[in-house]
Amino acid sequence: MAPPKLSYFPIKALAEPIRFVLSYAGEEFIDNRIIRDDWPAMKPKTPFGKLPILEIDGKVVTQSTAICRYYAKKSGIAGEDDWENLLIDATVGTIDDLRSAIGAYHYDANEETKVKKYDPLVKETIPFYMERLEKQVEENGGYFVNGKLTWADLWFVGLLDYLNSMAKFDITEKYPSIKALKDKVLAVPAIKGWVAKRPATEF
Amino acid sequence: MAPPKLSYFPIKALAEPIRFVLSYAGEEFIDNRIIRDDWPAMKPKTPFGKLPILEIDGKVVTQSTAICRYYAKKSGIAGEDDWENLLIDATVGTIDDLRSAIGAYHYDANEETKVKKYDPLVKETIPFYMERLEKQVEENGGYFVNGKLTWADLWFVGLLDYLNSMAKFDITEKYPSIKALKDKVLAVPAIKGWVAKRPATEF
Repeated sequence: MAPPKLSYFPIKALAEPIRFVLSYAGEEFIDNRIIRDDWPAMKPKTPFGKLPILEIDGKVVTQSTAICRYYAKKSGIAGEDDWENLLIDATVGTIDDLRSAIGAYHYDANEETKVKKYDPLVKETIPFYMERLEKQVEENGGYFVNGKLTWADLWFVGLLDYLNSMAKFDITEKYPSIKALKDKVLAVPAIKGWVAKRPATEF
Repeated sequence: MAPPKLSYFPIKALAEPIRFVLSYAGEEFIDNRIIRDDWPAMKPKTPFGKLPILEIDGKVVTQSTAICRYYAKKSGIAGEDDWENLLIDATVGTIDDLRSAIGAYHYDANEETKVKKYDPLVKETIPFYMERLEKQVEENGGYFVNGKLTWADLWFVGLLDYLNSMAKFDITEKYPSIKALKDKVLAVPAIKGWVAKRPATEF
């Protein structure tokens, strides 16, 4: 069986949580990085015009969260029961809401409206989410869910460079429990190994 | 055990897929509709300042997709195995991307930039997604995944009035397989029963 082939742009961003989970799962994978010039020709051949996509045994699947959940289950970092999966999924969804909020600033093509979004983002939205996520980690023994490593932790830490880059500062700086969680995830041998060998990119 | 209490604004939108799945699951639930004037006082007391939320046995959970997946699993409209769940989750994520794309137009607070977004949305983005979703339904025996009803179908049909309202036209009009899927979902007795008794709202 050929190893799964993950196609994405030559950045971390939305593919990095998948690369974290695949690495944690011990899955050998092809880390296919598409240069921007090749994307317009490739785009109509993808299922929904977006990356990342993953090819497994000739089938192509989409959506970062769906792919992460699939490999998380295989490698023991999904929930132990339906309720725990609900808590993990809710956390991943909340982190994705935070990503959307930061992205709504970063990807605004209109310079005038973009500039106006930055202050409320940095002074209100990001602290609102981060204070609550910090509290969640405090109350859950240093992880997002039930005192143990789950793919919600890998999702957050995998996205973090992307979130920080879009927000233009380290969004974890005032949150010691989140920072400790980040250090713990990056110290997991499989994650540490991946981070050491991955191509250096800004975000 | 008290029935789960679903809190949302007095509209369909993001809560309607949950109401569909709860109805399909045969779960009695409290359909708590928050009037806009009460929301500012309630918002800081919610986990992440957003609705819908669901209270189950004194615990409060968030995120529409997470809640739908939880009850879908209980009621036999989740996947039969991890691979089928991946296909369902990917479809739900794609439909959510379409929702985000339509929402980026609808919720744009700047009238000038908003107006410019409408043509590309209606002429390019929506057809791009809908043509591919139509093809997916054609290839999957009239459903989104593997020729049978899953919560991906309920997710789409539950959101449809909201999507149509934001897009200002019926996005399914040119897609006969999607329209047939919509009719099938609305003919499921539990869904039909819910739709007959729910409060009438525009979207």
